[in-house]
Amino acid sequence: MSAGLDIMATQLDSAADAAQRIGELLGVIAFATSGALLAVRKNLDIFGMAVLACSTALGGGVIRDLLIGRTPPSAFTDLTYLTASLLAALVIFFRHPSHRLTRGALEITDAVGLGLFCVTGTVVAYRYGTGAPTAALLGMVTAIGGGVIRDVLGGQVPSVLRPDQELYAVPALFGAAATATLLHFGYYRAWSGLLAAALAIAFRLLARRYQWRAPQARHSPDLRGR
Amino acid sequence: MSAGLDIMATQLDSAADAAQRIGELLGVIAFATSGALLAVRKNLDIFGMAVLACSTALGGGVIRDLLIGRTPPSAFTDLTYLTASLLAALVIFFRHPSHRLTRGALEITDAVGLGLFCVTGTVVAYRYGTGAPTAALLGMVTAIGGGVIRDVLGGQVPSVLRPDQELYAVPALFGAAATATLLHFGYYRAWSGLLAAALAIAFRLLARRYQWRAPQARHSPDLRGR
Amino acid sequence: MSAGLDIMATQLDSAADAAQRIGELLGVIAFATSGALLAVRKNLDIFGMAVLACSTALGGGVIRDLLIGRTPPSAFTDLTYLTASLLAALVIFFRHPSHRLTRGALEITDAVGLGLFCVTGTVVAYRYGTGAPTAALLGMVTAIGGGVIRDVLGGQVPSVLRPDQELYAVPALFGAAATATLLHFGYYRAWSGLLAAALAIAFRLLARRYQWRAPQARHSPDLRGR
Repeated sequence: MSAGLDIMATQLDSAADAAQRIGELLGVIAFATSGALLAVRKNLDIFGMAVLACSTALGGGVIRDLLIGRTPPSAFTDLTYLTASLLAALVIFFRHPSHRLTRGALEITDAVGLGLFCVTGTVVAYRYGTGAPTAALLGMVTAIGGGVIRDVLGGQVPSVLRPDQELYAVPALFGAAATATLLHFGYYRAWSGLLAAALAIAFRLLARRYQWRAPQARHSPDLRGR
Repeated sequence: MSAGLDIMATQLDSAADAAQRIGELLGVIAFATSGALLAVRKNLDIFGMAVLACSTALGGGVIRDLLIGRTPPSAFTDLTYLTASLLAALVIFFRHPSHRLTRGALEITDAVGLGLFCVTGTVVAYRYGTGAPTAALLGMVTAIGGGVIRDVLGGQVPSVLRPDQELYAVPALFGAAATATLLHFGYYRAWSGLLAAALAIAFRLLARRYQWRAPQARHSPDLRGR
Repeated sequence: MSAGLDIMATQLDSAADAAQRIGELLGVIAFATSGALLAVRKNLDIFGMAVLACSTALGGGVIRDLLIGRTPPSAFTDLTYLTASLLAALVIFFRHPSHRLTRGALEITDAVGLGLFCVTGTVVAYRYGTGAPTAALLGMVTAIGGGVIRDVLGGQVPSVLRPDQELYAVPALFGAAATATLLHFGYYRAWSGLLAAALAIAFRLLARRYQWRAPQARHSPDLRGR
């Protein structure tokens, strides 16, 4: 019985490991695609596309690894992620939507990357030994970081700051906090992690679809405002 | 006598520790306020304000911690600073000066953050075991870093580079170098640290007030210049 | 005989060490000059020039050191590089080409920095114990990093992304990959490293001269493109 439970636990663990790796790879591909699509919009050449795709896809994870002290970051030692980013850029170079549709495609791939990375980033940080709140913050930074790098390099205000961009940081924080809670109480499994990622992606896409906007600070018309 | 001196030294140390913590917290609040004010000027929503306030307030310290190898950076493990940044952003969301006055308020809060961080950043680096010149450089980077992140994310040329912005890096370097000198010769106390911060803040504000500008390189009118 | 070979190997090593240091110093001076020239173009004052020159010259190496976990980065502990950057900025402040010629001078100094840093960056990473592919990637990042920082701070799209900027990342990757190959098979010497740097510089300058451009993604005129 006990041996059976151990085997089951090990299977669950290896399932979670596989899900983690698949989730990271899909997140990398999604963000690389979003970077390559922005490159198409900005008329970059194929090498500029490759640089922007890789910065977007690997940037968040590199920042997370630097913050937890894992050097060199896995993006530089495990070349699977770099290869996947370059392949995604190559595919977009040859087959991409027309100019009018790139924006929608960019935002969908960006949402998928955001949702997957807020979960996998939290898991990596937690397993590295940080507490649950720190892991949630690092997961959010992992999810947001790549997109910020993409937007700063591409010369536009980061999505996370734009008021015409509906809720962006909030879905990432939601997914990261849910994952950290699951990890803290020992309920994190492959399927619950996937669920958290799916909810974060749905949250972000619904916010886009129904234009859930957050309030802006009012500008007082007079000069006496404090 | 000796025991009395030891106790006095311990009291001095704990006073310096308390001053260090209060100085860091005030610097965080000042920079968070400056980030939130820029967010008001740029019409960001409340979450964009929170992101910009936190990046500004915590960015310099995160860079410093990465540079000295303290991972994860204290901004991710001690949530006091994050909470203070969010509260500052919330206050500015509800009560901020009118559009015409935000610029002045932004520059005053920025000067206060600059002065406090060049001192506390130098102290953190020095206590971590770097030499005095390295500590002074890291203190200057801590002080400047948050504002650079704020300006790059907010889409404007960093204050530290703008020629219409009077001396910016110089007050930070002055405060950091003074602190490193005090530390190196064993004269660093709570009050001398506060004095160095006050002098750096005054230096920066006087430079604004009296428009102390540094010379720009002349553009030669002819084409033969080398 | 064996002793003679040992001495010869040691001499080769110390020649490689000296070449490494000279290469790094020349790369720092070249990049500092390019940063100072951009500062002249942007009408920054002398302190803004110093900040931009140092960020450009030291930024790539600081990023590399953070990525391999060498903290504090050598730019903060060995002040030779900082001093060289400041001197380069000072020289450019007093003696710089006329406005119309700064662009050409900027691009030549940038190419020299790029070629030298892709080699020295790879060597530093490899000696720190990373594998050859990781060292090549880190070398490329070292070479590109400073210029990206310069362009982001100076408010322009990074050269590495601009389609009107002929091949930029490719010469850096070429030089880094050549160096990593030499190191991996034990053929790295002072002269072979210099040769790799010279080839990378020539590659970049020839790409400029003869406008070797990479293809851009075609924009499909219709909306059915996928």
